Amino acid sequence: MVKTKSLKNYAQQYRSELLEEIIPFWESFSVDRQHGGYFTCLTPQGKVYDTDKFVWLQARQAWMFSKFYSTIEQRKEWLEMAGNGVQFLEKYGRDSEGNWYFSLDKKGNPLVQPYNIFSDCFAAMAFGAYSEITGDQKYAAIAKETFGNILKRQHNTKGIYNKKFPGTRELKNFALPMILCNLSLELESILDAGQVENLTNNISKQILEEFYDESRGIVLENISTDGHFVDSFEGRLLNPGHAIEAMWFIMNIGIRNNDDRLVKKAERIMYQQLELGWDHTHGGIFYFLDAKGHPPEKLEWDQKLWWVHLETLVALAKTYAYNQSPLAKDWFKKVHDYTWNHFRDLEHGGEWYGYLNRRGELLLPLKGGKWKGCFHVPRALLEISKTLDI
Amino acid sequence: MVKTKSLKNYAQQYRSELLEEIIPFWESFSVDRQHGGYFTCLTPQGKVYDTDKFVWLQARQAWMFSKFYSTIEQRKEWLEMAGNGVQFLEKYGRDSEGNWYFSLDKKGNPLVQPYNIFSDCFAAMAFGAYSEITGDQKYAAIAKETFGNILKRQHNTKGIYNKKFPGTRELKNFALPMILCNLSLELESILDAGQVENLTNNISKQILEEFYDESRGIVLENISTDGHFVDSFEGRLLNPGHAIEAMWFIMNIGIRNNDDRLVKKAERIMYQQLELGWDHTHGGIFYFLDAKGHPPEKLEWDQKLWWVHLETLVALAKTYAYNQSPLAKDWFKKVHDYTWNHFRDLEHGGEWYGYLNRRGELLLPLKGGKWKGCFHVPRALLEISKTLDI
Repeated sequence: MVKTKSLKNYAQQYRSELLEEIIPFWESFSVDRQHGGYFTCLTPQGKVYDTDKFVWLQARQAWMFSKFYSTIEQRKEWLEMAGNGVQFLEKYGRDSEGNWYFSLDKKGNPLVQPYNIFSDCFAAMAFGAYSEITGDQKYAAIAKETFGNILKRQHNTKGIYNKKFPGTRELKNFALPMILCNLSLELESILDAGQVENLTNNISKQILEEFYDESRGIVLENISTDGHFVDSFEGRLLNPGHAIEAMWFIMNIGIRNNDDRLVKKAERIMYQQLELGWDHTHGGIFYFLDAKGHPPEKLEWDQKLWWVHLETLVALAKTYAYNQSPLAKDWFKKVHDYTWNHFRDLEHGGEWYGYLNRRGELLLPLKGGKWKGCFHVPRALLEISKTLDI
Repeated sequence: MVKTKSLKNYAQQYRSELLEEIIPFWESFSVDRQHGGYFTCLTPQGKVYDTDKFVWLQARQAWMFSKFYSTIEQRKEWLEMAGNGVQFLEKYGRDSEGNWYFSLDKKGNPLVQPYNIFSDCFAAMAFGAYSEITGDQKYAAIAKETFGNILKRQHNTKGIYNKKFPGTRELKNFALPMILCNLSLELESILDAGQVENLTNNISKQILEEFYDESRGIVLENISTDGHFVDSFEGRLLNPGHAIEAMWFIMNIGIRNNDDRLVKKAERIMYQQLELGWDHTHGGIFYFLDAKGHPPEKLEWDQKLWWVHLETLVALAKTYAYNQSPLAKDWFKKVHDYTWNHFRDLEHGGEWYGYLNRRGELLLPLKGGKWKGCFHVPRALLEISKTLDI
């Protein structure tokens, strides 16, 4: 019976799924042996349906295989797989100023300009992790340079592609600080200790005191530059999965710094967003909501996305490992059941599906695309199997 | 029995709905008496839930009320309603180079830069129509200047906000030529006759010979600059409602020019897109599809949108009025039943709903928002009531 099962017993299930289904899928179907890099647009059977290469997804996969190599086992093929992405990115990924393009064609020709700073964030992560496993300082240098660039661009990430009229309603967005929390820890070995300390302190403070709106009990995706709620479409936007993912990044910082208060605050906020985001009619967690309950601008608001559920499982596993609370255990089991029953592909196995409608029915029959690659499923399975194996 | 009802009998139903439900809704709830212009973000009850002003929606409403005045009845309040939008736009809508912003706050301060040429297209339409009903040449001059600007920008509509890397994969998009078909005829009275002739000929040719892919029987949203199918997410994108709407613009050109071949070709393409877009499981027309049947990039692909269905009804009414074919009649009744049964608000009356999920259930409880204003419902009801009253 599920009730009597300790969460520790899940560790093996997550690890087997990773090693027997997820990793083999990407190893078998994603490698472009002709031009280098990875294909990410893959059908349920692993067939390539589009050959464009999205820089952030290339980087995520290179990072992921570097992590498999450093944390699971030093398999030669994982090292090569990571190198396949890193070398493609090194050759084709940047413009003359060192900014990372958003997308390239299969041969590496740039398609979309570096308007999106997440290309840079994941490139820094990939080159950092690859330099760690190879010991090659050339890659560490690229990671450091990219990280410096991100900090330079952080207050106007879109640069010349920013369409906002200056001065009328200046907003700051949650995504970059949130990613910087994680990125700083990921790059800890190649950054100055003081810099990591400073960044993680400042950013977690900004998230917990500004983006987290205590009076409303919600994490806002966009706030005014002086840290307040703005009553507009962007200002009212909530993304519960995003907020929950950030909370496990902050828990990591708290655990690293032996800061129990920080961990507990992140835990409390995480539960609030989960309660808020849970669909009591059909199960699963909504993609977007509006802080005032108005109709969200995003038409996909009620859909159920793989990464939202997997990141929530990571957050719950971390909470449980930290304090073994029954609340964490109950929520973990509930989200686990929804996630495994709805996103896994029972017919073909391999990587999981990504996009379901509100009822949990398959919306897009794909394993990867423009916005889904080799990242959230394997990272979560890896994190959870390690976290629960206590 | 529906079978014995001639389509002529629908004319009165469409006219009553327009005069008794739709127009009163916008008259009662959308006017900003303090700052001018219109609120478009309205709940089912007509309450304003967001006060931002989207230039293209301001212009669409000003155009719409000008049309009510010129084609239904010269009511003083409709003239004032049109003027309320036109004056707000004249005062706040443009940057120093005459390009129209995308959005303003309620007081008229610019929020989003002129990256979107549809602001300009609908501003030209509004100022043209308002100059016609007032006889004031000042407004005709703004319309003409804006139209000239659109033609200047047509090959790079996003200007400095264009994120495409030049040269790798140059595409042209269907939306602007499609709108120019309609806009040229709308502005006929203030443009040179030769210019209208030239534009409509060139553009309808481009649509029917390039964007329409004869071998596949589909209208593509994006093609290479030399007029061919491109196998990428954008190149494979289909938007059946968009294609069908363009076909009634082209039918108008054909009817105006006594070009029976043009009307018949547009009719044939319209039926193809309708067959392709119809959801045989749940009824209604899909929002987006992929030309090769791959998963569309757009997460909202399977949703049912009001304008898609209303524009299809206009196209079918025009076809029926032109040739009284039984096929047009059958399709009209089928789409009419779906549309009236699913988008009308039986509880509150007034403007119709806009966004349904694939099953036809309400997805967003709103009458207007950032992308829906006073336009497709009233324009279609007006067009259909005039077209079928033969």
